[in-house]
Amino acid sequence: MSKQPNLDDFRVPYAGNGNGKKTAKFALTDFDTAAKPFSSGSKEADRERLAEIGKRLDELQERLHAQRRQRVLLVLQGMDTSGKDGTVRAVFHEVDPLGLRIVPFKVPTPLELAHDFLWRVHANAPAAGELTVFNRSHYEDVLVPRVLKQIDDAQTERRYKHIRQFEELLVDAGATIIKCFLHISKDEQKSRLQARIDDPTKHWKFDVSDIEARKFWDAYQDAYRDTLAATSTEYAPWYVIPADSKTHRNVMIAELLLRELEGMKLEFPPAKEALKGVKVE
Amino acid sequence: MSKQPNLDDFRVPYAGNGNGKKTAKFALTDFDTAAKPFSSGSKEADRERLAEIGKRLDELQERLHAQRRQRVLLVLQGMDTSGKDGTVRAVFHEVDPLGLRIVPFKVPTPLELAHDFLWRVHANAPAAGELTVFNRSHYEDVLVPRVLKQIDDAQTERRYKHIRQFEELLVDAGATIIKCFLHISKDEQKSRLQARIDDPTKHWKFDVSDIEARKFWDAYQDAYRDTLAATSTEYAPWYVIPADSKTHRNVMIAELLLRELEGMKLEFPPAKEALKGVKVE
Repeated sequence: MSKQPNLDDFRVPYAGNGNGKKTAKFALTDFDTAAKPFSSGSKEADRERLAEIGKRLDELQERLHAQRRQRVLLVLQGMDTSGKDGTVRAVFHEVDPLGLRIVPFKVPTPLELAHDFLWRVHANAPAAGELTVFNRSHYEDVLVPRVLKQIDDAQTERRYKHIRQFEELLVDAGATIIKCFLHISKDEQKSRLQARIDDPTKHWKFDVSDIEARKFWDAYQDAYRDTLAATSTEYAPWYVIPADSKTHRNVMIAELLLRELEGMKLEFPPAKEALKGVKVE
Repeated sequence: MSKQPNLDDFRVPYAGNGNGKKTAKFALTDFDTAAKPFSSGSKEADRERLAEIGKRLDELQERLHAQRRQRVLLVLQGMDTSGKDGTVRAVFHEVDPLGLRIVPFKVPTPLELAHDFLWRVHANAPAAGELTVFNRSHYEDVLVPRVLKQIDDAQTERRYKHIRQFEELLVDAGATIIKCFLHISKDEQKSRLQARIDDPTKHWKFDVSDIEARKFWDAYQDAYRDTLAATSTEYAPWYVIPADSKTHRNVMIAELLLRELEGMKLEFPPAKEALKGVKVE
């Protein structure tokens, strides 16, 4: 094995002091989608490591839940087929469903569209003691409408600013926010889309519009680049996850979550004095 | 092994045609809390069976999710320490968290109390394609207030009626409702409460009021008996789950869910003609 990989090498540089100025030094093409720095090289060993981390995440989540003070938000974003669903399934396999809330964000409903774009997101923010995963998120609202030219640059910048301010509010209230961009290549997407087409039991996951969206691949990569650069903050950083390898993607996200949760110094609440020596009748 | 156990032997007799008349022939004391009819006798074999059912439930849940038409509601009720949390953890270990929603009902908030007792429950009913578990439920509202004499018999009967009608609405919309009463003995509760007291990391699960509630054990058993009898309907039956053995409880509930989900004849939606032969560019 070469030197220990560092999660922070995959962190998007901070966007500065919230003034929205673009970060010059960040490019998605600097990250190899096929890289596997957090893989041991053996699929079996990777799976064992994933199970080991999963058990530890389960223990930490129990403390989070018991304490009911802090909260965690994991945001998963990425192109179609980048593996958001698969991440949820693999990374949280060992975590007690009682302490986990998965929130999928779909195309907004008319009611949701009648509100500001953060309204439905705020309603689903993690409560004290919760570990919440956003499967897509408020970031869709600075990606899709921008690519489809439904909002202009000035509107996009204002949304970036609203996002930074909204996330600051959550962090001030005790949230730890971890944002992952699942980074796949255009070729990898091609083979995954084709696999779905070739398996009729996977057609329900597929819409013909997915192929249309693929035509805007480059525009989406640009939109992601700008979005990540503008919204990676010290209090809510973005990480680029090389995701052509599903196993690597799972291990890396699990390692990242583990590091963040361990950094929270989660402890069970103190024992209750009133229960000391009590005998149940 | 003796003869194959039958889940229907544990079903509470139907409450009749919804007119609220009590079912005479049902008594909780007819069910042995320590019985293990769905256990093989070997803990290891039981765990293997549970894992096997779990994988099957995961497959069925994927079809439910893909189809987005039917929906499933599992209601878990029982005295403190009867194992509601443990059931969620064990029975759904293999089920994809994406397709599962666990809803814990706590002491109602002022906003919830400002509404009718089914308001917060309706808001959390499973949507098409969802598998939702109620950890406690609207049934708390015919148990606690009755035992504490906050509602009289006439009010209780009206609530039973509202519950039957509400559940009928959900079933008409495509829901399958499965209701489990986790049946433990007073002695078993004693040892479980004591174990929580003796382990300071479990104190957060414990409130001194739990010991107070235990003083009303008999009143709660009566309230459960009447509630189950009045609300076990053909479209939303109650099952009594002998739950002194945790492993038995888990296996029995898993077997019940498996039977119900298999009975739903869940299939993937038909292949999309438009995708036939499509090649991704």
